[in-house]
Amino acid sequence: MAQKEIGSAEHDLIARYFRPLATAPGAFGLVDDAAILKSSGDDLVVTADAIVEGVHFLPSDPSDTVARKALRVNLSDLAAKGAVPAGFVLTLALREVRDEWLASFAKALGEDIGTFECPLLGGDTVSTPGPLSISVTAFGRVPAGKMVRRTGAKPGDKIVVTGTIGDAATGLRLLKGELSADTLDKSARDFLVDRYRVPKPRNALAACLRNHATAAMDISDGLAGDLAKLCAASGVSGTVDASSVPLSEPVRKLLRAGQISFEDIVAGGDDYELLCTIPENHWAAFVTDASQAKVGVAIVGSVAAGDAPPAFAGEGGRPIALKRLSYSHF
Amino acid sequence: MAQKEIGSAEHDLIARYFRPLATAPGAFGLVDDAAILKSSGDDLVVTADAIVEGVHFLPSDPSDTVARKALRVNLSDLAAKGAVPAGFVLTLALREVRDEWLASFAKALGEDIGTFECPLLGGDTVSTPGPLSISVTAFGRVPAGKMVRRTGAKPGDKIVVTGTIGDAATGLRLLKGELSADTLDKSARDFLVDRYRVPKPRNALAACLRNHATAAMDISDGLAGDLAKLCAASGVSGTVDASSVPLSEPVRKLLRAGQISFEDIVAGGDDYELLCTIPENHWAAFVTDASQAKVGVAIVGSVAAGDAPPAFAGEGGRPIALKRLSYSHF
Repeated sequence: MAQKEIGSAEHDLIARYFRPLATAPGAFGLVDDAAILKSSGDDLVVTADAIVEGVHFLPSDPSDTVARKALRVNLSDLAAKGAVPAGFVLTLALREVRDEWLASFAKALGEDIGTFECPLLGGDTVSTPGPLSISVTAFGRVPAGKMVRRTGAKPGDKIVVTGTIGDAATGLRLLKGELSADTLDKSARDFLVDRYRVPKPRNALAACLRNHATAAMDISDGLAGDLAKLCAASGVSGTVDASSVPLSEPVRKLLRAGQISFEDIVAGGDDYELLCTIPENHWAAFVTDASQAKVGVAIVGSVAAGDAPPAFAGEGGRPIALKRLSYSHF
Repeated sequence: MAQKEIGSAEHDLIARYFRPLATAPGAFGLVDDAAILKSSGDDLVVTADAIVEGVHFLPSDPSDTVARKALRVNLSDLAAKGAVPAGFVLTLALREVRDEWLASFAKALGEDIGTFECPLLGGDTVSTPGPLSISVTAFGRVPAGKMVRRTGAKPGDKIVVTGTIGDAATGLRLLKGELSADTLDKSARDFLVDRYRVPKPRNALAACLRNHATAAMDISDGLAGDLAKLCAASGVSGTVDASSVPLSEPVRKLLRAGQISFEDIVAGGDDYELLCTIPENHWAAFVTDASQAKVGVAIVGSVAAGDAPPAFAGEGGRPIALKRLSYSHF
């Protein structure tokens, strides 16, 4: 809580690292108190997700991956809602100003701003005696009334996920030394760690979801728990066929070796894949659109009537009891 | 980092404390991943400010005042930009879930949501091993192109502030035991402490600023430093007459008693009053409008040509040298 002139550390660090990223006209070069989002006639989708050192990322994670994760967990929400990114604000709570850390953070953030066409609009930089924390509020646009909700799943809809499930949670366990490193070669280990550190938000699928999905959300707390939330919001139940949950080769190998369980895979969290429900008569068109967007999709089960939590079925249809459905930080 | 079922602590606390506050249609009762702000044709003004325990508020501050401060520092930015509040998202980083603390926090937040007609749209609740932190991103609306910038001040404009300056910084020093409590009676001490804990954002003046101000910002880091920022953004200089800076009676008393200095008053921060520049030919109408809005306003100086930092003049016009202009947490 030092007293300083303006031209203070906060002023300097914003000017040095973040002003060059704030090129959108409504960001006013970060020299005003607020930014402007022009009206477009579209609905503006607003989402907020924060990540905290030691909770959502590890103190040892490189700062470029921290920057990407902070933005991408929010981009993933926009994707799930069928929204096209329109910008974000960033609140950075720093214990100290470390130039090397910030330079790498800002460089990676700038790259993602370009990749996902999601401009930096503003934010706040504050001092904290605690862990580094990054809060992002992200904005997207959808045609009026077209945000994809969690609430529209209907009995008979297919339950669909993108990508592969369980990679990130497994990568985190590798980083924490909870798994033997011997089962996998280095490239497989690197793949899993990267899946934990740098989510791959499926924004390419936003329009596809708007056109075909009855409900969607992103998988952040584990497929099992997040599917339970989606089903509860829609007033439906469902069944997942465990053998159809898409797995990467490294996760498949660890599962076969008995180092991780099916529960670790579907209740682990941090996937940032999409979970959605697709009516039978939209399936063919959905697959075509997803293929054009170069995103892998897989049917993992189907929506059923009722209000029972969704069930997971193993070999021969036997139910798999999950002791936990998702990851909670509290 | 405990593992829990859904119906987890985070889920429960959002349902119990925050869902009842999220009554706006676009908030979807906080059961979706994102909120909707409908397009209105207006520009959407976006501002983000975070407050951290031990930095922006004291661990001993009651949680109702913490809630009000978190929202109001953002409402103050909207007021300064001439914007009418449209809603906010709240990211709460908690070390632990304490029901009593949260109940009082949510109750006060709900009252302010009503008072300022600024609905809760969404947010995030995360666990932190560090200090309690609250990040708010707030939204306001202004007619297209009408946001009041920092950049329009012109030589000859009057430099104007609302309310009284230096109360909050003095209240903080009282709370920290840095001032003798004897000079003031209890009601005067309570007034200053309240000014620190619960900003009074001047949203009633938003339309008035849009109609009359050439530039505006809220005073969060001290009048001296914030005026320097406004002048720099506008490419002008200015002079402030120290004797015209409006002071509350308790601050005046402490100044007379030599317990605080003029520098403490204008470089202390946390005022959350408005600083604006008003052209001579708008002054009469501005005063009329401000009076109707029941907000006190005072001319403290005038804008001048040049790029020198604004000067503070004391008795007989002698310059007052300020060792520091504003408060910095780094």
